[in-house]
Amino acid sequence: MTVDRSLSDRLSLNQITTDQWNLEQAVDGCLRHEIPWISVWRHKIEEIGLKQAKKLIQDAGLSVSSICRGGMFPAATAKERGERLDDNKRAIEEAAELGTDTLVLVCGPSAGRDIATARLQVAEGIDHLVPYAKDYGVKLAIEPLHPMFAADRSVINTLNQASNIAERYQPSEVGVIVDVYHVWWDPQLYQEMDRAKGRILGFHVSDWKVPMPDMFKGRAMMGDGVIEINRMRQAVEQAGYHGPIEVEIINQSLWDRPGDEVLAEVKQRFLEHV
Amino acid sequence: MTVDRSLSDRLSLNQITTDQWNLEQAVDGCLRHEIPWISVWRHKIEEIGLKQAKKLIQDAGLSVSSICRGGMFPAATAKERGERLDDNKRAIEEAAELGTDTLVLVCGPSAGRDIATARLQVAEGIDHLVPYAKDYGVKLAIEPLHPMFAADRSVINTLNQASNIAERYQPSEVGVIVDVYHVWWDPQLYQEMDRAKGRILGFHVSDWKVPMPDMFKGRAMMGDGVIEINRMRQAVEQAGYHGPIEVEIINQSLWDRPGDEVLAEVKQRFLEHV
Repeated sequence: MTVDRSLSDRLSLNQITTDQWNLEQAVDGCLRHEIPWISVWRHKIEEIGLKQAKKLIQDAGLSVSSICRGGMFPAATAKERGERLDDNKRAIEEAAELGTDTLVLVCGPSAGRDIATARLQVAEGIDHLVPYAKDYGVKLAIEPLHPMFAADRSVINTLNQASNIAERYQPSEVGVIVDVYHVWWDPQLYQEMDRAKGRILGFHVSDWKVPMPDMFKGRAMMGDGVIEINRMRQAVEQAGYHGPIEVEIINQSLWDRPGDEVLAEVKQRFLEHV
Repeated sequence: MTVDRSLSDRLSLNQITTDQWNLEQAVDGCLRHEIPWISVWRHKIEEIGLKQAKKLIQDAGLSVSSICRGGMFPAATAKERGERLDDNKRAIEEAAELGTDTLVLVCGPSAGRDIATARLQVAEGIDHLVPYAKDYGVKLAIEPLHPMFAADRSVINTLNQASNIAERYQPSEVGVIVDVYHVWWDPQLYQEMDRAKGRILGFHVSDWKVPMPDMFKGRAMMGDGVIEINRMRQAVEQAGYHGPIEVEIINQSLWDRPGDEVLAEVKQRFLEHV
């Protein structure tokens, strides 16, 4: 029971898992289900404004594990890339205001066919942001996305790439997110988790089920798929990460169910399979 | 025109591109469209028998670039793994009989959650097959599949993994296939193509289009997506590969069209974008 208690204290609801709920509903849901952490998405903040979002979370006594998301650095023109940077600065400010030190970066796809240039633009974008984030006490957390998202969401697709960028900075400035769904297949996974020691800023769980109903909205509940989630948790802990664990399940069928039913299942599966 | 001529001489129809056709129809189609090579799938051979398949291809004067496919090595029990090896031996015999020296290996998914063990079982399976293939003058061509197929089709997902296995043998025994759809996203792509010098046994083309209609049957026609196909062709040529180039497009919408219309488009796009 001690182990379970310490694990459930680390459970964080990544808000996209209950996208049918607005922020107020999600905060209330966390209270009802005794989930101590929440990861907030910016489109949900926008609906009610930053001040109101902050008040809701503070009044509920929830801790914010991260804010989703910054990134989307590559673009065809310098002007557009500048606009993306401005948007990232707003995200940093929002993170600081909501009391989290972690801004998740989904780095963005290439504007054209040249993926190598897009990867350089990601590194440049991060380089511009680091001093700004530092001023706000916010760490930039590079989340590698599964290679199947290389064309439309992120050209950063492995922990190796993420660490190659992160290591140019202090661990207090730039780190990486380990999301089991994105990296479970990687032949270098355990070496790269070990390499990222001291730089892991988040651990996200879901599962990979065959057949997958949808590339984007097809993530499965923990335990329903093939991912060795518990083995990966042990590895991130060996690499020094003992912070909140976000349940981030992007799946239309969860959004079609009552949020309370989803949260009850999330909590049970979390304790059984993470 | 010299360049185009030498390119069109390398065009191979991977038979899955016209899955609406049986082997006889595909062979006739290649003749009508002056496509000199064909890659034959085993389920199409089975429909008419090996002897008849051989006669059709020989009478037409087509060359066989490869046979698809062996592999599928991992299984839960030693008995099942033995049966998979037996099936691979039949595939080797069929390749030799049809006059190709290239057996494409789609290595197979894990029987359970343990992907590391499945990867060892792939290496063991190949190790068992090498002497048998050598006796028949057939090379084993390891095709890394996109990481999105790690759970259901192959635990070999990068050129790095494929070369790690291939390099245990002579280049005349084991090599790799470069399929643009599977490897275009890989940050190590050009290094790994260079490393595979002398071991590239095939080059497959299609494209990656956003949004993808289906993970398995969603490959696009060359030119419709984001892949730098021509840059990759130059890289495989620098790595010593000047053999046939297979057009392998697994897409339901192509199968719903008349095969002749598909072949005409294949040929045009091949010359424009490969």
